[in-house]
Amino acid sequence: MNDILQSLEATIQQRRDADPKDSYVASLRAKGRAKMAEKLGEEAVEAVIAAVQDDRSGMTEEAADVLFHLMVLLADMDLSIDDILTELARREGLSGLTEKASRKE
Amino acid sequence: MNDILQSLEATIQQRRDADPKDSYVASLRAKGRAKMAEKLGEEAVEAVIAAVQDDRSGMTEEAADVLFHLMVLLADMDLSIDDILTELARREGLSGLTEKASRKE
Amino acid sequence: MNDILQSLEATIQQRRDADPKDSYVASLRAKGRAKMAEKLGEEAVEAVIAAVQDDRSGMTEEAADVLFHLMVLLADMDLSIDDILTELARREGLSGLTEKASRKE
Amino acid sequence: MNDILQSLEATIQQRRDADPKDSYVASLRAKGRAKMAEKLGEEAVEAVIAAVQDDRSGMTEEAADVLFHLMVLLADMDLSIDDILTELARREGLSGLTEKASRKE
Repeated sequence: MNDILQSLEATIQQRRDADPKDSYVASLRAKGRAKMAEKLGEEAVEAVIAAVQDDRSGMTEEAADVLFHLMVLLADMDLSIDDILTELARREGLSGLTEKASRKE
Repeated sequence: MNDILQSLEATIQQRRDADPKDSYVASLRAKGRAKMAEKLGEEAVEAVIAAVQDDRSGMTEEAADVLFHLMVLLADMDLSIDDILTELARREGLSGLTEKASRKE
Repeated sequence: MNDILQSLEATIQQRRDADPKDSYVASLRAKGRAKMAEKLGEEAVEAVIAAVQDDRSGMTEEAADVLFHLMVLLADMDLSIDDILTELARREGLSGLTEKASRKE
Repeated sequence: MNDILQSLEATIQQRRDADPKDSYVASLRAKGRAKMAEKLGEEAVEAVIAAVQDDRSGMTEEAADVLFHLMVLLADMDLSIDDILTELARREGLSGLTEKASRKE
């Protein structure tokens, strides 16, 4: 289970250079950063709706879509999922409330 | 690196039953599902903005926020991050474009 | 200029009962409330991006899209744009900061 | 009812130059374009949730929030609500489906 995100990241990296006609990732890349960001926003809205509707099956799909498009965006910014996991691990020692307060200063 | 999400999931599960005054996770839970969903939407908007501004440092923080609040929401729906990773793995064999087309039918 | 929103509202009301093949409004209605809400969220994300990119021409289109899909949603909830304008007028006497503080209590 | 948006626009223009401690509009302006855009995104997410929950009272508030923050953003981009109403009027003669198709080409 554990290396799925790293494996997905490698796949996204490979597909970025494919023909946009053959690859969804390449087609997103061809449309540019703003379009990739827009997709993340759209999938997040769909996840919000699935959550409010308590639609567990829909949420599984939408959460996967959010993660996927987040990783497409990270790849386009030369960021790795490991950068994000490192940031989460860094925060995890802190109590959530303390951390939120300190971050939002 | 690989078990950070599972470790974070365990932490979120523990904090859900804490006093809302002591834990950000518990305070979100006390406000209800819609508020948790709202937070996911807000953090996704902030990630969208960081991406469009090409702000790599900001994106690292916002992507971590998106992941964190997505996992708070999953916990509240009795879904596990492993459910989402399984869904991503299931899709990964497919070409992105084919998969998108079949899913959006 | 002043009665455009009321005129648009009347048009949306008429189109709601049209054949979904002939009318975008009717096609949205046929897909249900959640889909209409999703469209509002998507158009808002596009407006956010146009704003951050300082794209005035894009913002004119996206702001119109936000307003249009907001009004489609209001019609589906038996709310009128006049209800919203009345709410805005009610707030307008207050200083923004005071009003925000009192509302978010 | 009809001149509320124009009146609100004038109020927003006045408040932009106020002390950020005294005016919510001025405090948003001081935080910059991205923060104003973020607020629009957040309020849109709250409107999406109110719509899915069929919360008419909540929707009245959130729709007013969306309109308000959209107008704050328009003012910051030297756009007027009349620019947006003109765009909506321009589209209105067209059937919704035709217009959508032609625009999204």
